[in-house]
This record gives sequence, structure tokens and C-alpha cells, in this order.
Amino acid sequence: MAGNSYGTLYKVTTFGESHGEALGGIIDGCPPGIQLDFEAIEVDMARRKPGQSAIVTQRKEPDSVQFLSGIFEGKTTGTPIGFIIPNTNQKSDDYSHIKDNYRPSHADYVYDQKYGFRDYRGGGRSSARETASRVVAGAIAKQMLPEIKINAYVSSVGPIHLETPYQELDFSKIESNPVRCPDEKQAAIMEEYIRDIRKQGDTVGGVVTCVIQNVPVGLGEPVFDKLHAELGKAMLSINAVKGFEYGSGFSGSEMKGSEHNDLYNPDGSTKTNLSGGIQGGISNGMDIYFRVAFKPVATIMQTQDSLDNQGNITPMTGKGRHDPCVVPRAVPIVEAMAAIVLADFYLINKTY
Amino acid sequence: MAGNSYGTLYKVTTFGESHGEALGGIIDGCPPGIQLDFEAIEVDMARRKPGQSAIVTQRKEPDSVQFLSGIFEGKTTGTPIGFIIPNTNQKSDDYSHIKDNYRPSHADYVYDQKYGFRDYRGGGRSSARETASRVVAGAIAKQMLPEIKINAYVSSVGPIHLETPYQELDFSKIESNPVRCPDEKQAAIMEEYIRDIRKQGDTVGGVVTCVIQNVPVGLGEPVFDKLHAELGKAMLSINAVKGFEYGSGFSGSEMKGSEHNDLYNPDGSTKTNLSGGIQGGISNGMDIYFRVAFKPVATIMQTQDSLDNQGNITPMTGKGRHDPCVVPRAVPIVEAMAAIVLADFYLINKTY
Amino acid sequence: MAGNSYGTLYKVTTFGESHGEALGGIIDGCPPGIQLDFEAIEVDMARRKPGQSAIVTQRKEPDSVQFLSGIFEGKTTGTPIGFIIPNTNQKSDDYSHIKDNYRPSHADYVYDQKYGFRDYRGGGRSSARETASRVVAGAIAKQMLPEIKINAYVSSVGPIHLETPYQELDFSKIESNPVRCPDEKQAAIMEEYIRDIRKQGDTVGGVVTCVIQNVPVGLGEPVFDKLHAELGKAMLSINAVKGFEYGSGFSGSEMKGSEHNDLYNPDGSTKTNLSGGIQGGISNGMDIYFRVAFKPVATIMQTQDSLDNQGNITPMTGKGRHDPCVVPRAVPIVEAMAAIVLADFYLINKTY
Amino acid sequence: MAGNSYGTLYKVTTFGESHGEALGGIIDGCPPGIQLDFEAIEVDMARRKPGQSAIVTQRKEPDSVQFLSGIFEGKTTGTPIGFIIPNTNQKSDDYSHIKDNYRPSHADYVYDQKYGFRDYRGGGRSSARETASRVVAGAIAKQMLPEIKINAYVSSVGPIHLETPYQELDFSKIESNPVRCPDEKQAAIMEEYIRDIRKQGDTVGGVVTCVIQNVPVGLGEPVFDKLHAELGKAMLSINAVKGFEYGSGFSGSEMKGSEHNDLYNPDGSTKTNLSGGIQGGISNGMDIYFRVAFKPVATIMQTQDSLDNQGNITPMTGKGRHDPCVVPRAVPIVEAMAAIVLADFYLINKTY
Repeated sequence: MAGNSYGTLYKVTTFGESHGEALGGIIDGCPPGIQLDFEAIEVDMARRKPGQSAIVTQRKEPDSVQFLSGIFEGKTTGTPIGFIIPNTNQKSDDYSHIKDNYRPSHADYVYDQKYGFRDYRGGGRSSARETASRVVAGAIAKQMLPEIKINAYVSSVGPIHLETPYQELDFSKIESNPVRCPDEKQAAIMEEYIRDIRKQGDTVGGVVTCVIQNVPVGLGEPVFDKLHAELGKAMLSINAVKGFEYGSGFSGSEMKGSEHNDLYNPDGSTKTNLSGGIQGGISNGMDIYFRVAFKPVATIMQTQDSLDNQGNITPMTGKGRHDPCVVPRAVPIVEAMAAIVLADFYLINKTY
Repeated sequence: MAGNSYGTLYKVTTFGESHGEALGGIIDGCPPGIQLDFEAIEVDMARRKPGQSAIVTQRKEPDSVQFLSGIFEGKTTGTPIGFIIPNTNQKSDDYSHIKDNYRPSHADYVYDQKYGFRDYRGGGRSSARETASRVVAGAIAKQMLPEIKINAYVSSVGPIHLETPYQELDFSKIESNPVRCPDEKQAAIMEEYIRDIRKQGDTVGGVVTCVIQNVPVGLGEPVFDKLHAELGKAMLSINAVKGFEYGSGFSGSEMKGSEHNDLYNPDGSTKTNLSGGIQGGISNGMDIYFRVAFKPVATIMQTQDSLDNQGNITPMTGKGRHDPCVVPRAVPIVEAMAAIVLADFYLINKTY
Repeated sequence: MAGNSYGTLYKVTTFGESHGEALGGIIDGCPPGIQLDFEAIEVDMARRKPGQSAIVTQRKEPDSVQFLSGIFEGKTTGTPIGFIIPNTNQKSDDYSHIKDNYRPSHADYVYDQKYGFRDYRGGGRSSARETASRVVAGAIAKQMLPEIKINAYVSSVGPIHLETPYQELDFSKIESNPVRCPDEKQAAIMEEYIRDIRKQGDTVGGVVTCVIQNVPVGLGEPVFDKLHAELGKAMLSINAVKGFEYGSGFSGSEMKGSEHNDLYNPDGSTKTNLSGGIQGGISNGMDIYFRVAFKPVATIMQTQDSLDNQGNITPMTGKGRHDPCVVPRAVPIVEAMAAIVLADFYLINKTY
Repeated sequence: MAGNSYGTLYKVTTFGESHGEALGGIIDGCPPGIQLDFEAIEVDMARRKPGQSAIVTQRKEPDSVQFLSGIFEGKTTGTPIGFIIPNTNQKSDDYSHIKDNYRPSHADYVYDQKYGFRDYRGGGRSSARETASRVVAGAIAKQMLPEIKINAYVSSVGPIHLETPYQELDFSKIESNPVRCPDEKQAAIMEEYIRDIRKQGDTVGGVVTCVIQNVPVGLGEPVFDKLHAELGKAMLSINAVKGFEYGSGFSGSEMKGSEHNDLYNPDGSTKTNLSGGIQGGISNGMDIYFRVAFKPVATIMQTQDSLDNQGNITPMTGKGRHDPCVVPRAVPIVEAMAAIVLADFYLINKTY
């Protein structure tokens, strides 16, 4: 396996399966002298954690991070930051039913085909638990860039959409409800919908919108490493993501140039922002915003046909934890990956 | 500037502005012994070229590629393939009106801010002409992987959508019409729409769908370098792209798990393919398909306000070439980037 | 800081200071299915450890490695192998005398200049203790390549040289004496010399010779990433290394072509091997051998002038541990880095 | 093949065989706004060129570089600089005798084994002609860093050594004689020696010393990417190099710590400089100096046994060009690679 690192100068490498002794990672490239707010890191860890309310999975997952290096007297030293997140609950018996069975729309089958070998306990590296390490690296990236404001929220749950433009939303309300939708009315409808899905033993997808404010002009590279291309890759690397669009996105493809062009104000800002804060791959100082589509997670509490490793179709019923809608928990992961991408470009583009 | 390379083991590096002496690139990592079909390369170059019909730009752009190394007696030698594409039409006078002016929704402003310096002739590295080098590298990648079938086509032009699923389309008809839509009826409507846009001096966006068939199980890496994350980055690095979705995409976010899960056949294939041929970031042997959204290009023949570098808003009218819909020309570029991504994973995953 | 990773497909990233809670690293790219011999890993760890005999430092450094991921039922799973090596002895008081002082020929001064900040306890990332993580990664690389034989030994201590060619040495005797010199007579002289240096409170340098056997033809790349260029970088990245030569090395620069050329045997092997097993950057199947020069370590027990951070020259006497000759301990580190380089090329060149 | 790029942020990628249409390369990452001195580039190209005097090869090799992009009105634009160096003399008939024969100590055999395929004309990518592209990239890197002084010279030819320390030499005399040795007496002896070697139809190796002055404190990374480790890799990537040492080098391995330590002056400079300007992998502001050992080139005009691809030993006599001592021509290549390494660290360490 390769590809367990992200970034060029702010480089994050992660390790760990959901059922090993610990997860963790190394952040290489964090500048020295940053006074770390450890509580803020724990807050982001808690936001990612399952079992936060009745609408999400009840599994307890204590995510306390231990920093092993790169920090001295509370400040980053510029050396690599190594950290671990112990797995306190490593019982493997819940997974015996999938040892020889490939669950539909899971990575079980491709893992066996690719590696000839599979740690069947909890999904191995495919487990969403891997994202805990991303949240740590993102939380530190955020603290490296205190002027940047990154706010993500749930804008759709299944067929229920929040149509309000982000400019009219109060981001301070994102954390006021378990679906992380800043519109309280819509949040209540979404929550009700998820409760219903839960009762059905089913799951549902959704969309996270992310808004990045106070980005200086000039981040990103104009050809292959466009800022939105890196953001896109970062988001698509999150489990269950099926789509990414920024600025006008797919709806922009239906527009005419005369409608889509963002006319300038004398100060270089633009009257509209269908461009989504990025021109030719480079930030233009306007708000960057994008949407990330999540499919429903594959583990459902209903009975479905699975395939065993002898080629037999056998019915299987999901056991244990049930996460009817993973999208609210994905909010801090989207923010973390956005922060990592920005930190990397800050260093590459010498803006830091 | 950085970021002019793509790939790890099949690595493509490009250079060249639209108005320098030549564009070109280097392909590092192409295996030895591949008998090259140079005509096939020229065909892809011609497909990308502007001025192919009345509905697209009339600018003549002779794109004959000259290979300078890495090929001996018609076969690749395993050494880097250097190539150039001469710019035969380098007159700069067409661009005098933008020397001191920032066109709306172009990269002019961010370039000046970022580099303190701008080659105003033809957009510099932001020019779509840079993609000619990608098409060369992609055409060779395709020949490296003869068993893989990559077919892209236009599935939307502005508000006109081809709703037919790709399975019901005849890909051999893609090149039968200038919009590159395999459904002839829909193609005619799209063509008519573009003609109308052209008359208005306006532009329009659209969507390219790409289908990749005969991919073996096992390409891609399960964490950051997921196959679809790399495909997404590659597509988002193409000029004017605003969104990427694969498999069920954004519509998958509205579905329930019980609807979305792809149940297995005994041979490991799946009955449905909402996953889009990728599970956990790794190809599962089913068709890979994705959609790429293009915004309308910013250069319109209407008068619009621009910003000059003294902070004055001044009206500007587009001159010279007019490309009312760039989406058909993007089809070979989408295919090329897909081929480059696959070639890279073939080498990384040692499937080659 | 950057540059805490080594390798492209067998990628090792390390973290940790000598006085943090733990050192550690991540090995990304190790193939699945390798049955690990954990005792062999501990043996290499023990060989690197200080305090192994009277001639080396007396500091106790218990180097027990804990693997946290990437291993299941004793076999590698193909996922990243995360590991930590706890620092059990983290007392910082020994270092108070260097808090504001720059020791001669240490990295103290450049660290303060570069980072504006220094974790003065034990040298930070400059500490030789960082190499413990390299030894873990190298020990696993060796097990990935069981057919390759890597043997390093001490061929010089200060002015005392072992002139015998490696072909006439019995590598099984390397570990039979504390200087790791396979010639017992010469070893005894070296040992006596080091004892004398120890009494003087001084230190001395030396040379490690490394021989790699059973390498297949074809590892390495012919231009920038020549096999010996990577080996050279890997060796020069070890603390205190001042020089690297392979095959005929510096003495080859005094020779004529007619003397230096290695004539072929009919099977493609060569009668002589002044080339050192590498032609044009690519292994040719003959033994690879190279020499690595180590300077004397800078910490001596004599009084020397140091510089304080106010610009005052002040006398300073080394305290605590005393390592009169670090070269024997460097033997397993040289082997580890060689194994990491080879493992990486095995994967890049698809020989594995 | 991989490995045709060097550098992370100042990234040089080269292509081209000695007998293709052209060599060339791409420099990605050169900052914008550098006013280029094209004559200085041609001077370095001329220094590398064979056939400069009676003591070196007589082959004519016109090395005029053509820049295709990245330069506008004489200044770098920040976009990639593409360039080609046409091969005007592409006759292949001189190489017919080596088509099926492996010359001793050439890369012929390993190429055939590795790639199953060989462009036998002129050594393919192993040809020293590839270094012309490095000289272009290095010449631009030098202009990016005008304050840095890089001077390389020949300090040994075969058994004839210039023992004078570099501090006592007049670098302005390096180009005053064809061996590029700044000591005129020693140069004359070396020249005479090479003439003699030439008459014998033989070749001889030598050593290039390189001195880099005015480097700021802080370039380099303390662990794997030490400044001297990168310099070492860069030098070892030059054809025919067998060894690299910096500062005290191999002779430092014979010294005691009390002799080797460089004591400070109050301003942070050191009284001696056995460290060679680098502490813990990071430049300390003192002169950086290193030595590079070159073996004699393998092509001699005497008859030697070669191996044919049927496994027969057959006598072969070198034809055509004869380069009795390649070391003087290597001087600009050593300087170029040093400049490339420094430029890269300037960008990574944000000193530029």
C-alpha cells in the first residue's frame, strides 16, 4: 500500500486500523513557535466521534490524542509532530460474521483481491476511524492559520435540502443541533428524517457545504495543482464521498458566460462570486465555498445478500453499531482536510 | 510556480504558453517496448483543436507534435519522451487590449497579484492551449493500456441534458457530430443551442461524462490516494471545470443505503453499479464512470466591465476567437487525464 | 522542518526527539504477507544501542519497539506500519549547561538561527537517537528481501585501517567483538586505541564498509536516481558522516581506464569489480560495496570553548555520557539505510 | 524508467539521448522576474562541451540552447522554462560495433537486462551529453542566487594532486588552462600527464573540488534531507562519479574530536572549518566545500575484451572520439548540480 501521506510541505502521514492498538500519524512541516490550543484539538476530535446523540451511532469511541514529539513547552518546535490515538475497545468478535464474507458496497472484496489478505476487523484502513488522525492534523493546521475561517455544515440529508445561501446563515448555530445544520427549522426536519431512517434500520447520504473566508490572494498553482483540484482530491479522499463541486459547480454548467462572469469592484473583489473564490486555480481573495456529496453508508441493519469467499451468495444482517447518517460527523473531517490543503499551499507559496 | 507535473511513476511535466515558440512536455516513466501509433496521437490532437466546425472557435491551431526522445524505431525505449508542439501563430497584437486590464472571471488579476508579472499574451499558462501537451501524454498512456476502453462524451450543453444511461449509448457515434454527443437527436438540439449562443456572442457550459471499461480489480490506494480522488484532481485540473462526481454522485447523497448498495453476483461483479466501479478507493472491476462539469468560458463577444491595473472599471469587448462552447473540445482532454491517472496506478500497483 | 521521510514506494517517516515521550515512525509501502521475525528486529535495535561494552557509551537506552498497526497475526498486512520506541529516561537536567550555549561542531547554533527556537534537551532531531527508527524500518526492509545479504563492518578506527579486501573476510565474525571488525587482530588493536581515546576524554572517527550481495541486475535509475546516488544520500543522512565512496571510490580517480575497466565473463558477471556492482546507476548483479566515513563525535570530556547566545566565548566541559567511538554502533544504521534504499528500488523497479 | 527529475520546488526534468533529435528539459519553480544573462548560460554550455582543446575529445558538439517558454522580455515569468538543445550530429553509424556488444564498464549490459531493449547509439540516457541540460538548469539557478559564489576546479588528475588548500588559490585562474586547475604549475603537469594518457589511447580519472561561498545560515533539513546529503546525491548522479566527501571528509575519520571540533568566534563563525560549512545537515554560514571523485571513462582506444549478447567474449577497440580525461569538462556540471541543490533549498526554506 502507498498513499498514506497528504501534502508536500505540510505533510500528514497516518497509520492505524480500527482494531489495532492505536491509530496515529506524523505531521511533518508544521512551522515552529505555534502556541497550541490542545482543548481546541480535543473539541474537533469530539465532533468527529460517533455516539454523540440519538440520531447517530451509539458506539463509544474515546479519541484522546497523545502527542509524542514536536512540541516543547506547549509550542511547536518545527520538528515532526508524532501522535497516537489509542484504540481502547479492540474486541474483534463483532466481526466474525464478515471474516469470510464480502459486504455489499464495502471494500472487503477489493481488499482481498488486491492484497490477498485482509484484516477483517472493523474495515482496516477503510475504517472511518482513520479520519481521527486527519482531524488532529487539521486542527493543528487551523491553529497555524488563525486568520482563516473555515466553516462546514450539513446542507442536505437525503432528499431534504437547505436552499439558503451560505451568506444568509449564522455559522455560530452549526453546533447547536446534532445534524450540524445552521438553519434550526431545517435541522429539525433533517433530524426527524434521520430518526425515521434509523427505525428502518437503513442509512441515508447527504451533502456538506464548506466555506473558507479570509484567504489571501495567490494560493494555488495554475496548472495541475490548482487550489480547487487539491481541495477536490482532499474531499474525495474522505470515506463515502461521491462528488465535489465549488463555486457555481454543476449548476454553473447550465449557465451562460454573460451570467456566470463575476464583475470586478475597483478593489479587485467581485460583485458576484460564482467563481467560488478561485480563478485559474489560484485564490482571488473572495470566499471559497464548495459542496461535498456523501453516499449512505453501506452497513445497514436490514438483511441483504452478501458474497462469501467461496463464491456463494448468502444473506447477511448488519450487527452492532448503526450509523444512520454519517454526514454530521463528516463536518469536522471536511474542515480538517480543507485546513491541511491550505496549510500546504501557505508553505509552498511562502505566504506563511 | 510549481505544480507542472502530474503523476508519480507515469509522470507528465508540461511547459509552454500559448504565445511562446512552442508548448511541450516530458513523459517520464513510460515502459519500454510500446509500439506507438502516431496517427492515433494526431487524431486525439485534432479532436482537441479549436476550429473544427461552425459551432466552435474558428481559430486555426495546427497541433503537430514532434517527439524528440524516448522513441527508437517506432517503439518507446523506456527513457523520457520529450516532445514539442510549435506555436505557429504567435502574433501578440490581439492581446494589447488586455495588457493592463483584468477580464472578469479570468486569471489575469490573480496572476498579477501572485507573480507581480504577467505574460498577457493569450493567458500564459492559464491558456487552454496547455492541454495540448496533456493530450499527447494521454494518447501514449492509452496505448500503454490497450485493453482499457476510455470513452468520454458530452452529456449536457447548458440546460440541455442527455438523460440516457451510458449503457444504452453507442460510443461509436460520439465522433459523428461536432458536439460529441452519442445520441444524434440530442446532439442536434445541443448543436442548435450552441449556434444560438454563438449568435448572441455568448458562451455556455456543459458536462462531459466519461466511462472507463475493462479496468482490473485493484487499482488505487485506500486512504489519501483513492482512485476516484486522483481522477477527481485530474479532472478539476482541467480549465473551466467546476465539479466532479462518480458513480451515483450527488444524486447518491439523496438515497438510502438499502437502495444504494450494489449486491454481488457470484463472480464478484455487482448487479448494480452505483459505486461507479470503485470501492474504498480501489477499482472493483466494474465500469468506472464519472461526470465533469464545465462552466461557460469567460471570453464573450459582448461588452462587459473589466478592471484595469489602476483600479478603474472600464468596459471591454472580447476580440478575435470566440468559443461558444468549449465542452466538446474538452472530451479528449478528459480522456487523456483519465488515461494518465490509470497509467500511473498501473505502474504503482504493479499491474503492468 | 521538512525532510523527515525517506523513499518513494517504501517510504519511511520518522518523528521524535531524544527527550520526548517516544520516538517512532511509519513505514508506508511494505508489501502484505511478510511473516515478521520480531526477534531479528530487536537484535538490530540492540546492536545500535549505546552502552554495549566498555569501549562505548555507558548510557542505558532500552529500545523496545512497539508496533501499533500494519501487522496482523504476525504478518504485514500491506497497510502502514506505525511504531513507537518509548523514551524511558527523559530527565532534562543533564542539558541545562547547553541551554544557552552552542557547543562547537554541534547543530545548536544553526538550529537557533534557523528555527528561532531549540529544544535543547539531547539534541532534538539531531540526536543520534533518531536513528533507532531507521533501524526498525531497515530491519523490516531486510525481511522483505530475504535473499539479499547486507553486511557492514568497521574497517577503520582513527588511523587504524583494516586493509584486507572484503572478499577475504569472514562476516560471521563481525559481531564477535565490540568494534565490529571481522578481523580479530585488527579489532583488538582498534579496541585498545578506543580505550586510550576514552581515557583522554576524547573521541575518534572511523570508516564503515558495507557489502551487499545477491542483488539482481536492474535496480536503480540511470539519470538522477542512480542506485549509488541514493545509497550515497542515505548514508550521508546518517549523523557524523563526512564521505561516501563505492567500488573503486576515490582511489579509482587515480587509475587509468585500461586498469579500471571490469572485463566480462561469458555469463555477464565481471572478472574484477571496481565498478562496485553498479553500472550507469543500475545494479549489474555483482557485489555492491561502499565505504562511509564518520567524523569523531563532537561531545568530548575535555574543556573547550563554546559560544553562548549573547556572543560570549565561554569554556565548557562535556558532561554525562561519553561515546569515544560511535562507529561500531553505526554499523546497523548503515545496514538499515542500505536495506531501505534497496526495498524502495525493488518496489519502483517492480522486481518484488 | 523514472528518476529524470531533480528537486522539490526548483525541479529540473531532463530528456534526450545523444542521438535523438534534441536534448532538453523543463525547469519548474524558477521564481518570476529574474533578468536572465543568456551569454552566461552559453559560457557554461561551452565549458561543458567536448573538443575544447588538444587534451580533451575532439568531437564537435554545438550546444546552443533554445528557450521555448517561461521567459518574457528577457525575464523569467515564473512559469516552467522549457528548453531544447538540438543534436546536430546524429549519425548512428559510429555505433554499429556496439549494437550487439557490451563494452566493459559501460551500462550496455544492464540496460539490455533492465529494459530488454537498448538504443545503442551513443549510450542513450547514460551518455554524458544528458548533462548539457543540467548545465542549463544550473546556470539559471546561479542567476537566481547572484550572491552565492560557486567555484569548482580540478584538484587531481590521476596520481597528480593539487595539495594547496582552496583558501590559497586564485579562482580567477581556473579557466586560464584547459585542465581547469587554478594552480598553473600543477595544471601544466596535469596537462602533460593527460597528453601522455592520450597517446596511450587510455583514459584517466581525477577529482573536482567545489567551494560555495556566501551561503546564508539555515539551508538544509536536519534528518534525511541534510544539505550535504542532497549535495552528495546530486554529485553522485553525475556520470563516472565514484565518491563524495565534504569538509574534512575521509581524512576526518582519522581525527580526534579535540582536533576536529570547529571553535566559535563571537559572531558565530568558526576559527576552523573542518565541518565544511554544514552542521547537522544545515548550512552554518561558513564556506561549503566538497570533493568529487571521477573514475576514468570506460571508452579507451585500446583493444579490450567485450561481451556480445550471445555470451561470447570478443575483442573490441574503441572508435571515434576519445576523451582521455573527462574531469575538466565535469567542472561546470559539478557547479550546475550544486546550484540546483541550493536553489531548491532556498525555495523550500523560504530564504528566497
